[in-house]
Amino acid sequence: MSFRATVLTLHPEMFPGHLGLSLAGRAVEAGTWSLEAVQIRDFATDRHRTVDDTPAGGGAGMVMRADILARAIDHVSPKGDPRPRILMSPRGKPLTQERVRELAAGPGAVILCGRFEGVDQRIIDARALEEISIGDFILSGGEPAALVLLDAVVRLLPGVMGNEVSGDEESFENGLLEHPHYTRPQEFEGRAIPEVLTSGNHAKIAAWRREQAERLTRARRPDLLAAKNQPLVK
Amino acid sequence: MSFRATVLTLHPEMFPGHLGLSLAGRAVEAGTWSLEAVQIRDFATDRHRTVDDTPAGGGAGMVMRADILARAIDHVSPKGDPRPRILMSPRGKPLTQERVRELAAGPGAVILCGRFEGVDQRIIDARALEEISIGDFILSGGEPAALVLLDAVVRLLPGVMGNEVSGDEESFENGLLEHPHYTRPQEFEGRAIPEVLTSGNHAKIAAWRREQAERLTRARRPDLLAAKNQPLVK
Repeated sequence: MSFRATVLTLHPEMFPGHLGLSLAGRAVEAGTWSLEAVQIRDFATDRHRTVDDTPAGGGAGMVMRADILARAIDHVSPKGDPRPRILMSPRGKPLTQERVRELAAGPGAVILCGRFEGVDQRIIDARALEEISIGDFILSGGEPAALVLLDAVVRLLPGVMGNEVSGDEESFENGLLEHPHYTRPQEFEGRAIPEVLTSGNHAKIAAWRREQAERLTRARRPDLLAAKNQPLVK
Repeated sequence: MSFRATVLTLHPEMFPGHLGLSLAGRAVEAGTWSLEAVQIRDFATDRHRTVDDTPAGGGAGMVMRADILARAIDHVSPKGDPRPRILMSPRGKPLTQERVRELAAGPGAVILCGRFEGVDQRIIDARALEEISIGDFILSGGEPAALVLLDAVVRLLPGVMGNEVSGDEESFENGLLEHPHYTRPQEFEGRAIPEVLTSGNHAKIAAWRREQAERLTRARRPDLLAAKNQPLVK
């Protein structure tokens, strides 16, 4: 079974972008996943192919129309389509590796790329769109965010990255930032690889890495430690 | 003065990607900014163009070599280059709109795209690389993250998006998620635009939007409210 992604966008030419290259691109050729980018303007109803209008109540920018988006969504994802419908939006729930993993285990995703000014709230409500944010910054549109979301998902699909993935996952999922890495040469500009790493003592190496990861996480991301120490609620 | 971005990557073919299209692409043509993608392998010293090696102390994956990266960085960004040197990395400080704004006000950026297994810590230390993360999820490499960072920066450069930007910025920077948007048609699938928005009463509209933004932020991102209520420390 192959993962099927459909992206609704005003810029279909931005897809597949980097997803057509390297491992993700090869995985498309291998049939592991597919990507279809659909032009929202094709579902407009006037000769100017209008998809937006001024905000009710006034204000800057334009808002994407619920009726046009409904036509687009219902066309690519009719009733019974088991795929989640996602709206990339800075108002959304922050993307986590956990959600990435759930998505990768599913049948695919329908992804609507919003403009920052936003889409009519009624389409979010009426089609139960899941709003996802990739971070607290503003992009030119939802497209770069959709490319990031799909990149994160595709690398988890069976066969895309081989065995490399499992190790990475664990390391991230223990809720700590990664320990520092070193490799040859033994000395670089007067800086040596920490002795413990060349000691051959695996228990000591593991302890050192753990300690470094905790130190780094405490310094940079105390929020991760706080989340980690909260009791799990089922 | 034009914003100059140099990306160091194993996949230069992924650039400019979506940054060559739409408003960002037009801004390159207008000379507002430039983007150069440089192949790290060009700085390898063996005939196999090797850039990585196995991790000191053991473990999965490969680590990018400090000596090769130093050659690449020093070539594109010799001493005296005023541009910040950034490493895209899930261990980094989370990207914020504030950092985006600072970068957009500067001369450009040198961006190193790491692989997840990481780069030798000594290059991070020796070249004072600023580690930036776009979120708590794992990508195939730093490239999609670099494209997102640059997209966020470029839209703030003078003339790229015109007047649209300022309004967006304010709305995001008050530390709240955006209120819901509505536009025509007046009725969509039995759902009407909230009455207050068509009342013409601007004070009431502003109050409603504020209340909605607060309600949404409380529900979805209590962390933003907590940060907002912390006393400012200079």
